[in-house]
Amino acid sequence: MNRPDIRRLPKRADPFQAQDALLTLVSQKILTSETVPLEECLGRVLATDVFSDLNIPSYDKTFIDGYAINGEETETANPSNPATFKIVGKLFPADYPTTLQVRQGEAVYVACGAPIPSGASATVKVEETRLHESTIEVIREIHAGEGIIPLGDDLKKGQLILRKGHMLRPQDLGVLASLKMSCAEVYMKPLISIISGGDELLKQCQNNPAAIANNYALVVAGLVSELGGSPKQMGIMPDAIEKVTEMIAKALENSDFVITIGGSSVGIKDFVPDAVNALGKPGVVTQGVLLRPGAISGFGIVKGKPVVMLPGHIGSCIAGFYLFAVPVISAFSGSNATVPPKINAKISEDVKNGPQFRFLLVHLKRENGKFVAQPTEGGSSALTTIVNSNGYAMIPPHTEIVKNSDIDVFLFNKLEITEIPP
Amino acid sequence: MNRPDIRRLPKRADPFQAQDALLTLVSQKILTSETVPLEECLGRVLATDVFSDLNIPSYDKTFIDGYAINGEETETANPSNPATFKIVGKLFPADYPTTLQVRQGEAVYVACGAPIPSGASATVKVEETRLHESTIEVIREIHAGEGIIPLGDDLKKGQLILRKGHMLRPQDLGVLASLKMSCAEVYMKPLISIISGGDELLKQCQNNPAAIANNYALVVAGLVSELGGSPKQMGIMPDAIEKVTEMIAKALENSDFVITIGGSSVGIKDFVPDAVNALGKPGVVTQGVLLRPGAISGFGIVKGKPVVMLPGHIGSCIAGFYLFAVPVISAFSGSNATVPPKINAKISEDVKNGPQFRFLLVHLKRENGKFVAQPTEGGSSALTTIVNSNGYAMIPPHTEIVKNSDIDVFLFNKLEITEIPP
Repeated sequence: MNRPDIRRLPKRADPFQAQDALLTLVSQKILTSETVPLEECLGRVLATDVFSDLNIPSYDKTFIDGYAINGEETETANPSNPATFKIVGKLFPADYPTTLQVRQGEAVYVACGAPIPSGASATVKVEETRLHESTIEVIREIHAGEGIIPLGDDLKKGQLILRKGHMLRPQDLGVLASLKMSCAEVYMKPLISIISGGDELLKQCQNNPAAIANNYALVVAGLVSELGGSPKQMGIMPDAIEKVTEMIAKALENSDFVITIGGSSVGIKDFVPDAVNALGKPGVVTQGVLLRPGAISGFGIVKGKPVVMLPGHIGSCIAGFYLFAVPVISAFSGSNATVPPKINAKISEDVKNGPQFRFLLVHLKRENGKFVAQPTEGGSSALTTIVNSNGYAMIPPHTEIVKNSDIDVFLFNKLEITEIPP
Repeated sequence: MNRPDIRRLPKRADPFQAQDALLTLVSQKILTSETVPLEECLGRVLATDVFSDLNIPSYDKTFIDGYAINGEETETANPSNPATFKIVGKLFPADYPTTLQVRQGEAVYVACGAPIPSGASATVKVEETRLHESTIEVIREIHAGEGIIPLGDDLKKGQLILRKGHMLRPQDLGVLASLKMSCAEVYMKPLISIISGGDELLKQCQNNPAAIANNYALVVAGLVSELGGSPKQMGIMPDAIEKVTEMIAKALENSDFVITIGGSSVGIKDFVPDAVNALGKPGVVTQGVLLRPGAISGFGIVKGKPVVMLPGHIGSCIAGFYLFAVPVISAFSGSNATVPPKINAKISEDVKNGPQFRFLLVHLKRENGKFVAQPTEGGSSALTTIVNSNGYAMIPPHTEIVKNSDIDVFLFNKLEITEIPP
């Protein structure tokens, strides 16, 4: 019997110091952008500030269906002494520019959105007039400006509309389109390769080619995608150091960073840290953090690109993912968004924490309309524990949190918010 | 001068009674489903309950890197009186099934995830052993079951895993994959046609073919898509009754329901209600609701499918969209989700409401970690007002809400949650 080649983990790092170190190491990355048609820009991140180069509206228009008149002529109008106007024309939104004029005693029918004819100072609603053949009666004073949206009321030329780093929502696309833009300059989504270990997954794939054996990679890919990255599943690395090195090297070439799942602990076949060290300096920067679960998480840097090494247990894997992968996805996406989404809640039971940070899985629910965080039962190896959770809280070492205290919960991603019953 | 053909709105309906009527009228719709590969199921809605047809794990396995031993032999072990075991083999996750046996005084190296050899009752971590050539010393009592995930610990055969109507999140895909599923049965997304009026948009398109003239349709399409529907922009209807009727008829044929924007008020060229009435019974059911903004919103039913008629001002359009279109999208998606996402917040100022329901645009922000709803300044015709908002509150008639009271805010969609600074 040969002596198994067992390694010991290095001294465990403070997780947030390690996270800061990672973010500092990758902070030099220059973000690239692309020009994308507005129809495809939903959820994308603006790469430039956007200023209005137009006044919107670009002319005075009516926001009601009614009649354009000179309001001064209604000064003394009331139901028993109405002001009377002769209808001299009709204007529709498509009629800009118009040469129509309103003179004393005259009105022009204006459909909502139509330009205001010269000589008119206000518009009066159809419902507020009495119609007699070709004249209308107005029964109250109509003040100058009533019913009119003046030029530049919505947007003024030169005004800052949206900032760089803003994630484009439906209404933002609407305002960009109103500036006659058909495309926007948005940051490229970071491309993230995901590699899983090891032989047992390969074996499962051979036994049932239709099944998705590396299901944790599927979870991580889904999270990457919901958190603003573009995931690329690279498949399964066999338990062989050369193959592991080759796959990580290839993944680094073709993406902005690499996530490995499993193969980075102290086991005989945990080749990922050696592979990362073999690929270039500095190689592994952190392996092992004071975090439970997730202690085996770590990262390295190769040719300036991060390799985030996640543990093989799903709970630990998710903990390491939020500690090291999510801040990098966020930084590389160029977004100012709060990722993952944060919600303050009352905790439903006492939580006592030992000497490590605790990645506390929670189920955020509602009680009487208010958010309550219920710590999730179950082991960190169990996918069902994650399925029963929708977020987590990070509990500092040596902390005692009393039931009903306020804590910050981080939802796994924005999908979770709609799955919380009302 | 001809007398303009002006119509008066019918008596305005209670908005929520009208909403209930709409939902009752469409409640007969039979939802259809499709089989989709798991990789493409993110955010899709399960059309069946899912039960586990496996035990997971399907055999006892170790969740640590260590040694499988019979724990009874460590009963008196301590640092000065260790229990010694001879290493007789190695097991890796891919080694299931195994015939390896552990007899008295023996240990088998087990890598995390490996099967437990017969004769072993527990596993002990590498870090907790002393290694001497081909033997290990264990320095504390190891209880039966330590380090082992027993068969069925994560999922038990027959267990209900996920319910019909659940929106699939990354972790759900992981658990489905672990059941050896490669596809899931999910509801078809409701297909929603969007038609905008009128001539002024057509004219803008002709003047600048690259520009997106019907920018409100772009906003509505983005919202449909973020709220679980599949939007189909049908383009612009000219201000001509035959054309409007033809476009709505075609849209109804090719989609689950139709949204029109503009053209349904009391103006001369507001042909949408007439077109809906011409297309079949019952035609227009509600036109005009006690809602501000959004009073001109309405809906009709043609051949069992709803036509939601939205006003042409963006603020009113959005109000009508949330009142009539969103509940139908939600019902037709088969989802149990809370759409739009609801968040309880303190209101930042007094709000006094008149005789109608008020669709109050708000900017939900955070103050000291808590959500605060700030009513948004600006007119209902201004896109910037919507850009400066991320949700709304529905204020009942004749209500006075005092600053710092709790109100329910509905975020426009799930994208908004990440755009709220921490």
